[in-house]
Amino acid sequence: MSLKGPRGTQDILPGEVEKWQFVESVLSDVCRRYNYKEVRTPIFEHTELFQRGVGDSTDIVQKEMYTFEDRGGRSLTLRPEGTASVVRSFVQNKVYGLPNQPTKYYYFGPMFRYERPQQGRMRQFVQFGIEALGSDDPAIDAEVIALAMNSYQELGLQSLKLVLNSLGDQESREEHRKALISHFDPHREELCEDCQVRLDQNPMRVLDCKKDKDHPAMSTAPSILEYLNDYSRTYFENVKSYLDKMGIPYTIDPNLVRGLDYYNHTAFEIMSESEGFGAITTLSGGGRYNGLVEEIGGPETSGIGFAMSIERLLMALEAEGVTLPLEEKLDCYIVALGEEAEKEAAGVVYQLRKAGIQVDKDYAGKKIKAQFKSADRLQAKYVLVLGENELANGQINVKRMATGDQETIPLADVVEYMKNEFEGEQS
Amino acid sequence: MSLKGPRGTQDILPGEVEKWQFVESVLSDVCRRYNYKEVRTPIFEHTELFQRGVGDSTDIVQKEMYTFEDRGGRSLTLRPEGTASVVRSFVQNKVYGLPNQPTKYYYFGPMFRYERPQQGRMRQFVQFGIEALGSDDPAIDAEVIALAMNSYQELGLQSLKLVLNSLGDQESREEHRKALISHFDPHREELCEDCQVRLDQNPMRVLDCKKDKDHPAMSTAPSILEYLNDYSRTYFENVKSYLDKMGIPYTIDPNLVRGLDYYNHTAFEIMSESEGFGAITTLSGGGRYNGLVEEIGGPETSGIGFAMSIERLLMALEAEGVTLPLEEKLDCYIVALGEEAEKEAAGVVYQLRKAGIQVDKDYAGKKIKAQFKSADRLQAKYVLVLGENELANGQINVKRMATGDQETIPLADVVEYMKNEFEGEQS
Repeated sequence: MSLKGPRGTQDILPGEVEKWQFVESVLSDVCRRYNYKEVRTPIFEHTELFQRGVGDSTDIVQKEMYTFEDRGGRSLTLRPEGTASVVRSFVQNKVYGLPNQPTKYYYFGPMFRYERPQQGRMRQFVQFGIEALGSDDPAIDAEVIALAMNSYQELGLQSLKLVLNSLGDQESREEHRKALISHFDPHREELCEDCQVRLDQNPMRVLDCKKDKDHPAMSTAPSILEYLNDYSRTYFENVKSYLDKMGIPYTIDPNLVRGLDYYNHTAFEIMSESEGFGAITTLSGGGRYNGLVEEIGGPETSGIGFAMSIERLLMALEAEGVTLPLEEKLDCYIVALGEEAEKEAAGVVYQLRKAGIQVDKDYAGKKIKAQFKSADRLQAKYVLVLGENELANGQINVKRMATGDQETIPLADVVEYMKNEFEGEQS
Repeated sequence: MSLKGPRGTQDILPGEVEKWQFVESVLSDVCRRYNYKEVRTPIFEHTELFQRGVGDSTDIVQKEMYTFEDRGGRSLTLRPEGTASVVRSFVQNKVYGLPNQPTKYYYFGPMFRYERPQQGRMRQFVQFGIEALGSDDPAIDAEVIALAMNSYQELGLQSLKLVLNSLGDQESREEHRKALISHFDPHREELCEDCQVRLDQNPMRVLDCKKDKDHPAMSTAPSILEYLNDYSRTYFENVKSYLDKMGIPYTIDPNLVRGLDYYNHTAFEIMSESEGFGAITTLSGGGRYNGLVEEIGGPETSGIGFAMSIERLLMALEAEGVTLPLEEKLDCYIVALGEEAEKEAAGVVYQLRKAGIQVDKDYAGKKIKAQFKSADRLQAKYVLVLGENELANGQINVKRMATGDQETIPLADVVEYMKNEFEGEQS
């Protein structure tokens, strides 16, 4: 009987994995430019971290977590998102005490949510995200947004839409909350069951409901932007003016509410407007989460971040027809004939590889014709031939496939010769 | 209350993470040269995969796995090692049917074993490994060993010892098994409890026992090498002669037995002989596992691979005092004075970053002196100053820190100017 990988997971094989490698190298380079450093946290955390750091009332914590007991009876959970873990590591390692605040982190890695698998939504998926901890300068909100936009642009996406909102500070939100309850309460019975609960727990999230989005009370709901106090309004104005200075266009959407409980002030999403992309249009989202560090047990520290799913990014690249510049050609293939030549070839291959050159050979006992076919299939730039004649004369034949030129050289010179060839090519 | 990461896990923070990034980039490059391609498999698998692919009788499966039920009642296990998952993906995706066999894979990623944490042994640890599936050419055994040795050498390790053995094919092992039982049976009661079970299940693993290693019967135990049949002996001779051609020295140890059930023919370990390394001397190990692919449900396919722990690799680098070439300097820091200049600076920073240059600025409302101090602490190669005067004149001041040279240039030219500076520096 054959075994399959678990539902909602995928294997990323050669042919596909090169896209992931490329995307990661571009995103890492964008982070380098913005001076965000990588942080790596464990795959699982104590369950309590996510109950506190994502929020007990969220769908993630209520329905979607992979939670289990280890052999020591601890309740552990595979991380469903990155922020709570990064903040936990920031607190545990007392990073807030280091010089050079704010702390600017990025991370890559698998996340886990038990949802119904569908295109662009896997149970194990990969997120790239950043967190900036320790600054409440609106310039850093703009920086985080700029990094997100730049990441997509560097990869070649064109049809991007940045949607922006402010969720205000606690005071503003409290006023807005009251207004929302007054507004929706007369319609309570008409709303979905989830929204009836939300109306008591976190009424702002009613605005985000997919079931009730066409209810007439939605379009007339009080906007958070009308309830921002002076500090929150000025903060938001400053974020916008920084984006203006950068030349990054945005659309304000007062109904943009992020799914997690802990957001405040700046909230944003980046959508793909590509026609080929289908139903899922949100590529990534982020926002400010002042208060989260204290919730996790650290000192009062402002924070802002964003996260994107790499799966959706790849879907968007495909939808826009972006071709990634992936190298598929093999540097060098060595064809060997006869037992002695095969032994000798293994030594040559080894020396070439030590010199930095990519080389492959046959390991399936193929005849000469089939070996040339392999070289062809691997798009070898050079084919080296070591037959019995060459071996007897201490020579090897080098064929440059792009031009068809070939040359027979002393076997002892092959490493130097090939190094010269490739140095010439790369400059 | 503050929350800690789970026992046996670690956060890898900036300052440390650069070593991981460097090691990974070197290992990836070694794989490129050897034409091994990356494969990524899920963090968890159906538990049955490891029961079958690692072996029900192993310590890993018996005692060390993180096994849990998902919300759908499936038994899942966090992968304790990489080979079983890679083989499962090879079978499930029918990779054996593609041209260009053997299939040569490498992988990186976290693995999970519930053990008592100690130095160099974490519950979540990172393995790098390779698998070559579909060849029983002894040249590929030598290739796998060469790649392992090269990996350490490229990173600068000197004190390496390669230990080699052959476990033979099934026929050879059966003869050896009988000899081992005859040899140890008279001492059965003197052996540890585990070995009494091993003597019936897999007597070869008695040779690997840490408790019984000083028992007099150990040194006189029959060697597998005396029981190799013709095919196995010739195979082993060929592996050794390929290593000789490559100039890779090795030591034969007939007691080298790998912990997993599925090994046959070539088995090897690489040890650190560095004095500073302490008790744990094995850096990595590998071997041939013909039969595993069928066990997982695929067609008859030979396989060989090896895996190393990155944690132990880093310990060995430290023990040998190897300094990794890590870049710590920031390209460019911009000092801005006054509200208008700060807004303008954000735009300049954005444009420089878009042009590929690494730039940072203050986000903590620091005064000018403290901003210069930040630039200093970040070892900025260039400091740009945008004060009220510069802004009024449409200029910016550029200071090259290595020489102390400075120049005031038009603000509109700053991106071109800095691009030229860095192009000059990199060539």
